[in-house]
Amino acid sequence: MPEALLMYAASTQDANLLYRTRFQVGDPVFYMEIGGRTLLLLNDLELNRGATEARVDEVLSLSAAEKELKDEGFTKHTIADVVARILEKRGVDRAIVPASFPIQMADMLRGKGVPLTYRKDPFFPERTVKTEEEIGHIRESIRHTEDAFARAWAAFQETEIRGNELWYRGAPLTAEAVKRIIDGHLYENDLLATHTIVACGEQGTDPHCRGTGPLRANESIIVDVFPRSMKTGYVADMTRTWVKGKASPELKKIDAAVKQAFDAAIRTIRPGIDSTEVHNAVKKTFDDLGFKTEKRDGKPVGFFHGTGHGIGLDVHEMPPMGARGAKLEPGMVITVEPGLYYPGVGAVRVEDDVVVTRDGCRNLCSYQKNLEIA
Amino acid sequence: MPEALLMYAASTQDANLLYRTRFQVGDPVFYMEIGGRTLLLLNDLELNRGATEARVDEVLSLSAAEKELKDEGFTKHTIADVVARILEKRGVDRAIVPASFPIQMADMLRGKGVPLTYRKDPFFPERTVKTEEEIGHIRESIRHTEDAFARAWAAFQETEIRGNELWYRGAPLTAEAVKRIIDGHLYENDLLATHTIVACGEQGTDPHCRGTGPLRANESIIVDVFPRSMKTGYVADMTRTWVKGKASPELKKIDAAVKQAFDAAIRTIRPGIDSTEVHNAVKKTFDDLGFKTEKRDGKPVGFFHGTGHGIGLDVHEMPPMGARGAKLEPGMVITVEPGLYYPGVGAVRVEDDVVVTRDGCRNLCSYQKNLEIA
Repeated sequence: MPEALLMYAASTQDANLLYRTRFQVGDPVFYMEIGGRTLLLLNDLELNRGATEARVDEVLSLSAAEKELKDEGFTKHTIADVVARILEKRGVDRAIVPASFPIQMADMLRGKGVPLTYRKDPFFPERTVKTEEEIGHIRESIRHTEDAFARAWAAFQETEIRGNELWYRGAPLTAEAVKRIIDGHLYENDLLATHTIVACGEQGTDPHCRGTGPLRANESIIVDVFPRSMKTGYVADMTRTWVKGKASPELKKIDAAVKQAFDAAIRTIRPGIDSTEVHNAVKKTFDDLGFKTEKRDGKPVGFFHGTGHGIGLDVHEMPPMGARGAKLEPGMVITVEPGLYYPGVGAVRVEDDVVVTRDGCRNLCSYQKNLEIA
Repeated sequence: MPEALLMYAASTQDANLLYRTRFQVGDPVFYMEIGGRTLLLLNDLELNRGATEARVDEVLSLSAAEKELKDEGFTKHTIADVVARILEKRGVDRAIVPASFPIQMADMLRGKGVPLTYRKDPFFPERTVKTEEEIGHIRESIRHTEDAFARAWAAFQETEIRGNELWYRGAPLTAEAVKRIIDGHLYENDLLATHTIVACGEQGTDPHCRGTGPLRANESIIVDVFPRSMKTGYVADMTRTWVKGKASPELKKIDAAVKQAFDAAIRTIRPGIDSTEVHNAVKKTFDDLGFKTEKRDGKPVGFFHGTGHGIGLDVHEMPPMGARGAKLEPGMVITVEPGLYYPGVGAVRVEDDVVVTRDGCRNLCSYQKNLEIA
């Protein structure tokens, strides 16, 4: 007896559903895959749009399915009855669901006698290897991100240094103002950047700090942007670190080390290896140069995050590239993002997106990586 | 023995977690509530930010909890072991999770001997009744939405009619252009509008059609905007229907009926009643005026969606206000959105957000509801 793949999700929040159906829907819907045939179960309001927009073999009407159940005498039924009946009619005797499948639907369906097992991420392993079309979508997101970096860079160029303050068009230049320049440009080009990081000085030494308030001269400013196309759903993920004015000798050494580690990662990436090897190449570069990773005053310093991760319809997807890794294959698109963080000195991270090729990798990004902005 | 509330979610996608912690986090984290005490389990990267930003009693370090397990001899453990141990140590013998709790974590925790039951939405019933602070956040989102409507209206005023075409600043006025005016204004004010509807003529007769392409003179144009504040998370949800030029007599009658139904809904809303009564008042208004709801050529026409729904951190939350209802209470914030849809004639929907008061309701919106734009 066949088994079904079963999802219950809103594609605006769930990349797996968007990947499989290319149908944008904001409320959760049921998706089934039975013997290679793909189906969406939609309410009357979504039925027309689904029939024209969703890349599925069949769109089922929820109200028609409910009517059928009523006609058979089921006066009180739930959505689980409807789904269980559809699966039964098509000869399915068990279903595989994503790890994120909601417990309520799981318990209800199990209660109706549908055995469910979850599949660990990735639900669609084929998502990890991108098609040419998908790489084109990612490149498009990268192109706009690079334009956004160029606009922010130009704003810094126009910025005046007064003591350690930065003044831009008559006001102190803030993290918020730089985010507005970047996110605004992306939004105008149909990309959504929601948690852009612009983190100056000490703020930047916490890699998850998004950054707020006035930016200062002669300190590191980490700018990390990961927008998602509102048209295609595909993301870019890039980071640059800038200093308006003069970087200290220590910060310049950190910057040089990060770029050396970046190059080591790029040289290491090739199909067949485990991505942890790339991470180890970055760690070794830092170790060899004497940049220690340790805890100081209870806070981690040095290089204490992964070297990268897959991108696609999600900002973080397979493969990971840190202490945990996965075998690299041609067509995987991954970030390369070494960084060093030293409170009291500053932080530097650079990040590009690369595609694994048959004999190495190709960097999809080309925006310059200069540290100092005059 | 106490029971725990348990969530595993990213607050950027899960309003319950955001509601309880006010902590913006993009990757899933565990939240526990034990005997009134609230806890977040965070990895090292989020620990500092969580300690300063999250409104919880305690922030637990995931790495410290893992180290403890290792020290006790558990060399191979999963996140489920960590959570099960924390619950056990605090004397918890069962946990209640939201309906959306992921099956993987559910099955893993159950496998570790933690009995889980899900609570149907709303997970936090108190979310339904808004505090003054929350109503303030919603009003703020409404204020910007009304400014966005005013900008779009002004663009229509500036628009020139050529035959049945609309021309704005040298180009045909499209649904996309109007969305750009509205969404752009909202984005500049830190509100995110993702699926704004601008649906002209026949497009508008499908309430879920988002609308595309050139807009035309003398036809109904439904504009439905539901942005979310990127600062507070609270939404507004408003709809206006406009005609650039002259509306047909039939469309004017539809418009008058929708506004009459809107007023009937407002008059009906008061605490203690079931919200279905409000929906029935709208249906009765349409019935009395002779506007039939039925299927024509397999497509629903007339009034075939709910009259409204709660709003807050989600665009759709409790209470519903349609065939299914709930008892209205002071402090609930609900949309009122009657509409009529007749292919061949057009569609009209108006929508405001109101708060239930002790003796009725107060409309939080004040933007004008004129149909025709000269």
